[in-house]
Amino acid sequence: MVIHGGAGTILRSRLTPVMEKAYIDTLTIALRTGYEILQRGGSSLDAVEAAIRIMEDCPLFNAGKGAVFTANGVNELDASIMDGKTLGAGAVAAVEHVKNPISLARMVMEKSPHVMMVGSGAEEFAKTQGVKLVPPYYFWTERRWRGFEAARARADSGKTTALPGEGNHFGTVGAVALDKAGNLAAGTSTGGTEMKRYGRVGDSPIIGAGTYANNLSCAVSGTGDGEFFIRNNVAADICARVRYSGVSLQQAADDVVMKELVAQHGGGGVIAMDRTGNIATPFNTEGMYRAWVTSDGKITVRIYKD
Amino acid sequence: MVIHGGAGTILRSRLTPVMEKAYIDTLTIALRTGYEILQRGGSSLDAVEAAIRIMEDCPLFNAGKGAVFTANGVNELDASIMDGKTLGAGAVAAVEHVKNPISLARMVMEKSPHVMMVGSGAEEFAKTQGVKLVPPYYFWTERRWRGFEAARARADSGKTTALPGEGNHFGTVGAVALDKAGNLAAGTSTGGTEMKRYGRVGDSPIIGAGTYANNLSCAVSGTGDGEFFIRNNVAADICARVRYSGVSLQQAADDVVMKELVAQHGGGGVIAMDRTGNIATPFNTEGMYRAWVTSDGKITVRIYKD
Repeated sequence: MVIHGGAGTILRSRLTPVMEKAYIDTLTIALRTGYEILQRGGSSLDAVEAAIRIMEDCPLFNAGKGAVFTANGVNELDASIMDGKTLGAGAVAAVEHVKNPISLARMVMEKSPHVMMVGSGAEEFAKTQGVKLVPPYYFWTERRWRGFEAARARADSGKTTALPGEGNHFGTVGAVALDKAGNLAAGTSTGGTEMKRYGRVGDSPIIGAGTYANNLSCAVSGTGDGEFFIRNNVAADICARVRYSGVSLQQAADDVVMKELVAQHGGGGVIAMDRTGNIATPFNTEGMYRAWVTSDGKITVRIYKD
Repeated sequence: MVIHGGAGTILRSRLTPVMEKAYIDTLTIALRTGYEILQRGGSSLDAVEAAIRIMEDCPLFNAGKGAVFTANGVNELDASIMDGKTLGAGAVAAVEHVKNPISLARMVMEKSPHVMMVGSGAEEFAKTQGVKLVPPYYFWTERRWRGFEAARARADSGKTTALPGEGNHFGTVGAVALDKAGNLAAGTSTGGTEMKRYGRVGDSPIIGAGTYANNLSCAVSGTGDGEFFIRNNVAADICARVRYSGVSLQQAADDVVMKELVAQHGGGGVIAMDRTGNIATPFNTEGMYRAWVTSDGKITVRIYKD
């Protein structure tokens, strides 16, 4: 199992030891929670959902509580999940009152004939499933609000166009897992980009772009400049390279993230796992919060390039 | 250039000669309009947009005017367009006041840093681009309203759960083209499925699912059971097979539409064109409105399987 908590300009010089420890601790808890499910014979879907829920609930990441604010000063959340065995998939975009968007995405997959639901319609569906909606201020954190106010001030002063996608830090979270039955799953959850406007939807809820899983190839979750991930169909393209070109997972992931995205100046990274348990975690940014566990149960957490 | 006006249960016995002629005439006009742009040396993007606009404006197709109604009795429109040369892409979903969603999708691609915008946010962006919004009744047609009332009556009587995706007729429109400069483009536009609920988004606005174009492989536009097209990443998967497996366009399109989708009971079809001008138009339904023009300028229009 592999998880990520976003890629971006994460420099040792900027992250205080306290913050660094908080990230490492949360990544460890999220990974261990998912891994224990796998150890008990649980499904990769359950492991992916459980690990992402922990990161959604943690204010450190740009997903669920702690999400960044849109230009209108609200939090709009996106998430998606995919089952590599059945190709079942679920996604929600632009929801504002759902504590754990990854779990709603799973309900879309399992309790509806659909794959994707957006906005208030998705929340109407949530209510039919007994999901208790939360008030918008549940997602509020001082850190993100300060970021929003600073960004808004820069926009008002005309010093920046404050267009989304310009941020150099991403906090999208994601997970990929392989269970004892040999089934792959992938999931991704995000608050999108700070100051985003116009109902912008990034790659996280787009099956094929931010998330893809197929037992015939691999499972992938991405984080970065969403527009580049959509145009390059990043998650599914890595799977397609493994399936059709016969290259290794590492090669496929590196070719997409370190060559194609870099050539287009698209920043970001992915976590990927193939059906034999090989993993790859390439990123072309300064850092990516990431953690994985090997078959002997050893957990590794990394933030920077080393 | 190839266009489509939807796949589904289109039987000769059900289509009157007058209706049949109307479909053939409109497909011919749409195709000729796009083809004349290509003949004059115009771009494949211009040709795709122009052909789709004509089908959006025509009440026969489930896109733009003539779109089906959602469970709430409104029209929610989705569209996407992609440039095979740059991988530039634009998409809008769940817009209710935009006469030509395909043109708004193109503005998202060319006039914003984003790929996808949804709902009222997309319409807010449209206004910044000088797009005049239309009132909801612009999209109203007697035929679709009757269909909606009949579906609602069935739902109220409990004879059907009226879940979307159960309809056996689709009227999504799309186009793919190759211009004199050797650039591919693809576009798709739809009103979605009748009686759809919960802000459901289908494959048409999903780059990789309903639409994909890459000069390295091919351009594809799909129509059918949207959920299956998303899960199978249909448009991009056909491109990936051409690019990585080295199979012909026909083989790639057939393998996805006639094998993978059929095995999953996913109905629909695609139009596809590769960089040398080969075309493929497989569908696994009774019929698909489609038309293409060969390099000698000969136009062919087909509706049924023969």
